[in-house]
Amino acid sequence: MDALSDNQAHGGRQLVVKHASASTGTDMIFSIFLPPQAEEGGRLPVVWYLSGLTCTQANVTEKGEYREACAEHGLIFVAPDTSPRADDVADADDYDFGKGAGFYVDATEEPWAAHYRMWSYVTEELPAFVATEFPVDMDRQGITGHSMGGHGALTVALNFPDRFRSVSAFSPIVAPSQVPWGQKAFAGYLGEDRGRWRRHDAVALIEDGARLPELLVDVGDADPFVEKELRPQLLKQACADSGIPLTLRVQPGYDHSYYFISTFMADHLAWHAERLKRR
Amino acid sequence: MDALSDNQAHGGRQLVVKHASASTGTDMIFSIFLPPQAEEGGRLPVVWYLSGLTCTQANVTEKGEYREACAEHGLIFVAPDTSPRADDVADADDYDFGKGAGFYVDATEEPWAAHYRMWSYVTEELPAFVATEFPVDMDRQGITGHSMGGHGALTVALNFPDRFRSVSAFSPIVAPSQVPWGQKAFAGYLGEDRGRWRRHDAVALIEDGARLPELLVDVGDADPFVEKELRPQLLKQACADSGIPLTLRVQPGYDHSYYFISTFMADHLAWHAERLKRR
Repeated sequence: MDALSDNQAHGGRQLVVKHASASTGTDMIFSIFLPPQAEEGGRLPVVWYLSGLTCTQANVTEKGEYREACAEHGLIFVAPDTSPRADDVADADDYDFGKGAGFYVDATEEPWAAHYRMWSYVTEELPAFVATEFPVDMDRQGITGHSMGGHGALTVALNFPDRFRSVSAFSPIVAPSQVPWGQKAFAGYLGEDRGRWRRHDAVALIEDGARLPELLVDVGDADPFVEKELRPQLLKQACADSGIPLTLRVQPGYDHSYYFISTFMADHLAWHAERLKRR
Repeated sequence: MDALSDNQAHGGRQLVVKHASASTGTDMIFSIFLPPQAEEGGRLPVVWYLSGLTCTQANVTEKGEYREACAEHGLIFVAPDTSPRADDVADADDYDFGKGAGFYVDATEEPWAAHYRMWSYVTEELPAFVATEFPVDMDRQGITGHSMGGHGALTVALNFPDRFRSVSAFSPIVAPSQVPWGQKAFAGYLGEDRGRWRRHDAVALIEDGARLPELLVDVGDADPFVEKELRPQLLKQACADSGIPLTLRVQPGYDHSYYFISTFMADHLAWHAERLKRR
C-alpha cells in the first residue's frame, strides 16, 4: 500500500491510496476519508461511493463535499477508480467505454477480459483490502454512487443484500440493458447474451427477485441524461411492483454534475448514518 | 459577458463568466455564486476570493466548499483568475511567476506591463463589472483569499479600507518584500525600486499607516511554506504594533492545500456574514 497523499481535512484525514490489484492485474487508486472519530481507536461505519463515466477517485474527492458530513456522523468514505488504468490496459476512444468506464462488471470478452474486472475489485478485493488496512466496521456498510456509479451501487447492493444497511444513488443508470450507455458497455464487456446482463441491471435484478429493505435516489430534472440513459421511472415501477420502499426525489433545476451531487451529499450521508448507527 | 457555465447548486446558481477586460487587454474568466436569496430581487453582500499561485477561478469553485455557507448566509461569492491568459501574454516557465502568478499588481516592467494589470482588474474593473451585471450590494463587501491571494486580499483591503466591512485570509503571504516568492514577483513585475513595492506588501502598508478595523487569518502548522514564504508572525507583530485586532489561528495538522481551505471556509464566511449583515 502506497499513500499517494494524506491531508488533514475537516478534523480527519483524506488519503489517496495506490495498491496492486490481483483482480485487475494493475495498480488501482482509491481515496479514503477517515473522520476525526477514527482517532478514538474503534471501528467505524463505511460508505462506499462508486463514480460515474470519465471519473477517477479524484472527482468526488475534490468536488463531492462529503468530508464535513462524514466528520459529523463518524463515517469512513471510500471512493475507487472507475476502471483499470495502465499502458497495457485495452482502451477505446470513447468516453463511455474503456478506461474511465468499467461499468462495475467482470468483462468476459476480449480484449477487455484481461483487466476489466471491476466487479471483483469493488465487491471482493477492495473491501477486503480496506478492512485489513483501515478501521472499518464491515457489519456497518452503506453504498452509493453517481450515474454509472449509481448503477454500480444498486447492482452491488442487490447482489449482496445482506452486506449493506443503507443504499442510495445519485442519478443512477437503473436499467443499463435498456439504454445506449449500458447496451454498448454490456455488449462490449459481457457479449451479446443478454441473459448474462441481468445480474448487472438493477431493474432486471428486481424483476428476478432481488430485494432491498429501502432505497434513496435523487435525480435532477435538468439532467440531460434522464430520459435517454437514466430512466428513473423504470426503477420506480420495479420498486412499486416488488414492494421495495423507494424514496425517489426529483430535484428541480439540478443537472448531472457534481454541483448537484455536492448539494445533496450531506442529505445522503445523514440518511446512511441514521441506518448505519442503528444497533 | 459570456456565461461559460451556469449550474444550480445548494439552491443557488454557480456561474463561470468570461468577459473582455480593458485592464489586461485579454478575456478574463471569473466564477460567481448567487445564493438562493438572489431570487428575491434585492441586492446581497458579496465576498471576493483571490486565489493562490497556479490557480484559476476553478480551484476554489471546485474544491472550496463555500456554496453551502453562502446559501445559508445569503452571500454572493466571486473568484477571479490569478493572471491574464492568452497566446500573446508573456509567460515564464516558473509556477511562481507569469501566468497563474499575477500577484495582484499592475506590472511596470517589460514584457509584463502590457497585460499583467491584475491590480486594476481586481480593484476597479471586476467590481464595476460585477456591480453592473449581478445583484451585489457594493456597500457590503468582504474580501478573502489564499496564499498569493491572501496577500492580494490584505493589500487590496489595506489600500481601500473604506470599501470592505470584513477581511480575512487563508495562509497569506504577509510580507512579500521579505520572502522569495514576493521578491521574485515584485522585482519582475515592478522593478528593483523597493519603494514601489510597499503598497503591495501588507506588513509594509501597516508600517506606513494603513489600518483595518479587524482581521481573521488561518494558517496550518503543517504548511510547508509558513516559515519561508508566509511569515504570519510578521503580520502578528505589525498588527500588535499598530493596534489592528488580528485573530490569527494556527490550525494544528493542516497544510497549504484546499483540504485546509475547505475545512475553515464556512468559518470564514460566517465571520464575513456577521459583519456584512450589520446595518
